[in-house]
Amino acid sequence: MDGMDDLLLPKRTKPYMAIAIPSSIVSEEFDLRERTRKVGYIGRAAAIFRVEDIVIYIDDDAKNAEFVKDVLTYLEAPPYLKKRLVKLNPNLRFVGVLPPLKAVHHVPHAFGLNIREGVVIDVNEVRSIIYVGLEKKVIVYQPLTPGKRVVIKIEKELEDSYIGKVINKEVLDWYWGYKVKVYSSIKEMFEKLSAEKYRIICASKKGIMIYEAEERLRQIMRETDKIITIFGGPKLDVDEIASLNGVDANKYCEETINFIPRQGVESVRTEEAIYIVLSILNYLKERPIT
Amino acid sequence: MDGMDDLLLPKRTKPYMAIAIPSSIVSEEFDLRERTRKVGYIGRAAAIFRVEDIVIYIDDDAKNAEFVKDVLTYLEAPPYLKKRLVKLNPNLRFVGVLPPLKAVHHVPHAFGLNIREGVVIDVNEVRSIIYVGLEKKVIVYQPLTPGKRVVIKIEKELEDSYIGKVINKEVLDWYWGYKVKVYSSIKEMFEKLSAEKYRIICASKKGIMIYEAEERLRQIMRETDKIITIFGGPKLDVDEIASLNGVDANKYCEETINFIPRQGVESVRTEEAIYIVLSILNYLKERPIT
Repeated sequence: MDGMDDLLLPKRTKPYMAIAIPSSIVSEEFDLRERTRKVGYIGRAAAIFRVEDIVIYIDDDAKNAEFVKDVLTYLEAPPYLKKRLVKLNPNLRFVGVLPPLKAVHHVPHAFGLNIREGVVIDVNEVRSIIYVGLEKKVIVYQPLTPGKRVVIKIEKELEDSYIGKVINKEVLDWYWGYKVKVYSSIKEMFEKLSAEKYRIICASKKGIMIYEAEERLRQIMRETDKIITIFGGPKLDVDEIASLNGVDANKYCEETINFIPRQGVESVRTEEAIYIVLSILNYLKERPIT
Repeated sequence: MDGMDDLLLPKRTKPYMAIAIPSSIVSEEFDLRERTRKVGYIGRAAAIFRVEDIVIYIDDDAKNAEFVKDVLTYLEAPPYLKKRLVKLNPNLRFVGVLPPLKAVHHVPHAFGLNIREGVVIDVNEVRSIIYVGLEKKVIVYQPLTPGKRVVIKIEKELEDSYIGKVINKEVLDWYWGYKVKVYSSIKEMFEKLSAEKYRIICASKKGIMIYEAEERLRQIMRETDKIITIFGGPKLDVDEIASLNGVDANKYCEETINFIPRQGVESVRTEEAIYIVLSILNYLKERPIT
């Protein structure tokens, strides 16, 4: 496969990208259907740009964070596992409006891979049975937790089943969806992200223009394995939310960047900003160093 | 005003940007509310990135093109003119779901401008009365067509009214919204755009990677006043739609570009692609030449 073709493949590449959004992102939509759809766009944007982690920081109501988490988690599950993984949950009443994600782990046999997402449906002392959305189940010679979601490598086909083993999705070459994490406040989030050695950038109209920051951004990309971009909410920018929580955002944000020189409208919604920002970051990240 | 502040202003800058979308963009949404919302996102993306023209090319049903045009036109009108400009139109049944645009011409006195959008409400031989969303009307000493939408420069305040004159929005420094045009086919569109000396680029997963095309794109940006980016639809790419119409897209598309190296999902929706593509084009356009 030559270099050109390879660039079409949804492989994981470093630095891994993460995004952080406030729980207030759904505070202005009173209709559950609208809220669901809004979160759907965020999940889509994350998957398009191979985001590994979506962090939700609570800036208004823990219930909003829970809602965003539940919808994002549902969206990220392969279609054939959605029903089994999701308990009766009022937050998921309108998931029918969500667009399909169609990431690698959602599409059967994408790229000829013999790796499948599955859920443990039966266990005894020596083996577990895994449902992977195919007619035949997978036998894994290892007792697992019933109901657990696992990534399976199928190694052998028998008449009635497959034999496989559990693999750690962290080691996969392919982009395999995002994880969702909630932090109780922007303060807790900043502290944890720093401790985890994330390089942190903030997206804000008040930031310096993207092309002014470009060189330093490329430098950061060369130096680190993981970058997180923090977004503000519908009412307040990151620095304002931080300030209300007694935190100086500048202490944590290495760069605060305006990604939209001369934006033609007064305000850009967070879900729009996520597409816009990730588009440029992905481009800068994948562009070969000259 | 120094260079930094100026870059925050929604001024028009060359080359002007235009986008083209197929009428089939709404073909997969059967619910009128959903269709309306989808078109709303396209209008928002266009205004964020100061798109001057949105071209709709008919690839399925002229009614779909009419729908997209009606919704985009409604969205682009300042809030205080929306009701007066829009006749009873079934295409506009769900415009309540549209997000506000808040472009310069929507926000009263944005940037201290004395320029307003208005509609002609009364005319005699010597003067017209214009409603501009303010308590006082504007008198223009010129007979105009009743019901016409005009851009007014307010020149003097009287006790009961303003005195103003009609100006051509084409000469404004500020981004003042988009125009919407419909072409009967992709063939007609390509021919007209070529005749109008647009430089044409096509967005497609099959194109060359954005950073491979970047230098030529910057060259095009230096050489021309107007660039149009052509997007495909939910089922077919630009080249496929063209081919069905007996047209070779490569004859017209100067560059066919993939803006999303290693996209993490199988397919990107047109409204998503518009945010993603315009984000990078705006960035390349505004980045100073080094």
